[in-house]
Amino acid sequence: MKACGLIVEYNPFHNGHLYHIQKAKKNSNADCMIAVMSGTFLQRGEPAIIDKFHRTRAALQSGIDIVLELPYHYAVQSSDMFAKGAVKTLHEIGVSDINFGSESGNISNFITSYEIFKAKETIYEKNLKSYLDKGISFPKASKFAYEHIGLTSGDMDLSKPNNILGFSYVKTILENDLAIKPSTIKRTNSDYHDQTIGNSIASATGIRNELFTNAQITPEIAKSIPKETYLELQQYKHTATTWHTWESYFPLLHYRVLTMSLQELSLIEGVDEGLEYRIKQTSKEATSFTGWIDAIKTKRYTWTRLQRIFVHILTNTSKNDVNQVSNEASIPYIRLLGFNQTGQAYLNQTRKKRNVPLVTKISQKPNPMLEMEEKASNAYYSILPPKQKNQFKKQEIQPPIRI
Amino acid sequence: MKACGLIVEYNPFHNGHLYHIQKAKKNSNADCMIAVMSGTFLQRGEPAIIDKFHRTRAALQSGIDIVLELPYHYAVQSSDMFAKGAVKTLHEIGVSDINFGSESGNISNFITSYEIFKAKETIYEKNLKSYLDKGISFPKASKFAYEHIGLTSGDMDLSKPNNILGFSYVKTILENDLAIKPSTIKRTNSDYHDQTIGNSIASATGIRNELFTNAQITPEIAKSIPKETYLELQQYKHTATTWHTWESYFPLLHYRVLTMSLQELSLIEGVDEGLEYRIKQTSKEATSFTGWIDAIKTKRYTWTRLQRIFVHILTNTSKNDVNQVSNEASIPYIRLLGFNQTGQAYLNQTRKKRNVPLVTKISQKPNPMLEMEEKASNAYYSILPPKQKNQFKKQEIQPPIRI
Repeated sequence: MKACGLIVEYNPFHNGHLYHIQKAKKNSNADCMIAVMSGTFLQRGEPAIIDKFHRTRAALQSGIDIVLELPYHYAVQSSDMFAKGAVKTLHEIGVSDINFGSESGNISNFITSYEIFKAKETIYEKNLKSYLDKGISFPKASKFAYEHIGLTSGDMDLSKPNNILGFSYVKTILENDLAIKPSTIKRTNSDYHDQTIGNSIASATGIRNELFTNAQITPEIAKSIPKETYLELQQYKHTATTWHTWESYFPLLHYRVLTMSLQELSLIEGVDEGLEYRIKQTSKEATSFTGWIDAIKTKRYTWTRLQRIFVHILTNTSKNDVNQVSNEASIPYIRLLGFNQTGQAYLNQTRKKRNVPLVTKISQKPNPMLEMEEKASNAYYSILPPKQKNQFKKQEIQPPIRI
Repeated sequence: MKACGLIVEYNPFHNGHLYHIQKAKKNSNADCMIAVMSGTFLQRGEPAIIDKFHRTRAALQSGIDIVLELPYHYAVQSSDMFAKGAVKTLHEIGVSDINFGSESGNISNFITSYEIFKAKETIYEKNLKSYLDKGISFPKASKFAYEHIGLTSGDMDLSKPNNILGFSYVKTILENDLAIKPSTIKRTNSDYHDQTIGNSIASATGIRNELFTNAQITPEIAKSIPKETYLELQQYKHTATTWHTWESYFPLLHYRVLTMSLQELSLIEGVDEGLEYRIKQTSKEATSFTGWIDAIKTKRYTWTRLQRIFVHILTNTSKNDVNQVSNEASIPYIRLLGFNQTGQAYLNQTRKKRNVPLVTKISQKPNPMLEMEEKASNAYYSILPPKQKNQFKKQEIQPPIRI
């Protein structure tokens, strides 16, 4: 069986995702569609709107055959680490293709870019460092350094978020010489609108904003998501009593920072260059998550970077936790969140070829990466009422979802 | 000016406290009544129902002339540490007398007990250890060991909570050869009822239970507290939106334990003998504070001991924090919470005789004990809405209360 991999967050799953699955499946001619998905907290440093189990169910009902969890260790990181974890997970599960959405939409742009990058990597690194030393944020410094080696001309704008991610995927594949064929589809709303699948295509960000503002699923949202997502979102809110937003974590996060010493804060992943002083100082007047980030933000510390740091504080993830597992060249396990019949057939057929163990429950193997996952999961559910909290956490030790 | 010291928690201040102040003032013939009071968290490991500033105001309006804070370091500890901090603070502020309530009510019983104890201390220690080794809780083991050296006969029952505390006060005075005259009044409801001061005398525990059950000040409570306490309780709830109960801290405490490693938990003050495993294990099913303690409780780990440990977890107080300051033979500062005109005259008159600095704001001196205090205060206010939280915390850096 031929498998095609997608790297996703599904926060939440919408018609654009449905279109992507169908297009990627057709292009790759795959029998099995495998998604590696961020779990509790996402790449931009945000809690997922509903938990990974409900998002898995929505994905399995809309064309995905296997859902794997991208470990927290890779998920809440900048694009290079994120790509490394996602691509290597898909490689270990045996995909022959990876398809991603991008602003460019042209795979040869990515491959050419990688070749230019490789040839001029030293110049890039030197310029990047010099921009960073001037106090410029990483995304901007990186953009300038790419421009400097001629990488942002024409169709290939490496300041666009999905181009950056795509470039990191292609880089991981080529650098590690993986037997995976990358391809991309253009990711623009107008492009999506041409398709016949959905009545309406909206971005996940737009859908989340609409959900949070109205605290319910409006007819506009309903039009831009499959019925299965609609039901999962609705059922989650009904049982859990809430969707997950950063603001709902503010009391826990604030409490945590206020009872940490400066020394303890400086040990948290991402807290560098004396940022602990700034976080402590601003905590005294903070009354909301948004206001707090606004007060800390500088040229160098972007919103996304600060959000990731706050996720690490909330989940109590230290530099030491991260270093303990960062040295591993390959990923230590594949976490299976769910599958359907096609997925099961694929897993059976490829069992003997797998080099890393398949983990189905968080408690299955003592592993520092799974311990990080457990803390993240515990922090994620901490905003729920006591009974729901304990009940939802138990999903982590139950068998994977089968539909 | 002659000063008499009282060791108090005022949680909340009631007619029994009022009676105690008046009786102690008369007996000692003091010009100035000084209370050393637990701050945010109390000796039995509970949050104070309203904050120390509002309790200070209530005390100053009912006969106390100076309120000092018993540092967290001493307050949330067993009777010996508690007594050490309280008596030494009163000694440094220059009191000539200390009066305490006890079940015994006879000071010569305490002094005789101390003499017997001193003569047989080695036997006591040996027996105590042997009972503890059998897995018996400290309070019970201590009671048995006292019985063994003949200390619980007749009027002197050293298993009664206020006798235990009183014994510790007298022990601190005599062991350190302090120029303080201890005296005691009998602490029983019937005794109190004979007095003309209050219409009704109830215990602080009874008043708290009534307050929490009804979520308001019932006519029964109103009868057992001075009008000033009534107003402070009412105003606190109005501004802060809540009184402080352990249950309201459950979400924060639970979140904290669930995101700590076993190793981190074992570093917290009071977590010994592998208790971290038991706390972690029971956290999975815990849905309330009371239910959680019930699930952890053993013969050796009493309710009070576990409550103190939970306070240390909530405030992030480590063994290391405690050890850093435990070695100091004398107290490093006196924290002044509030005073009236009489108190001010006393403080002026005794200024030159003081050997330790008077601290009025938490930020005044960098001191590890004040840092513990700040974390405790931050944890204490963490259950309030954001604006009230930040506003109430600022009381810590404002000048002391003057009435």
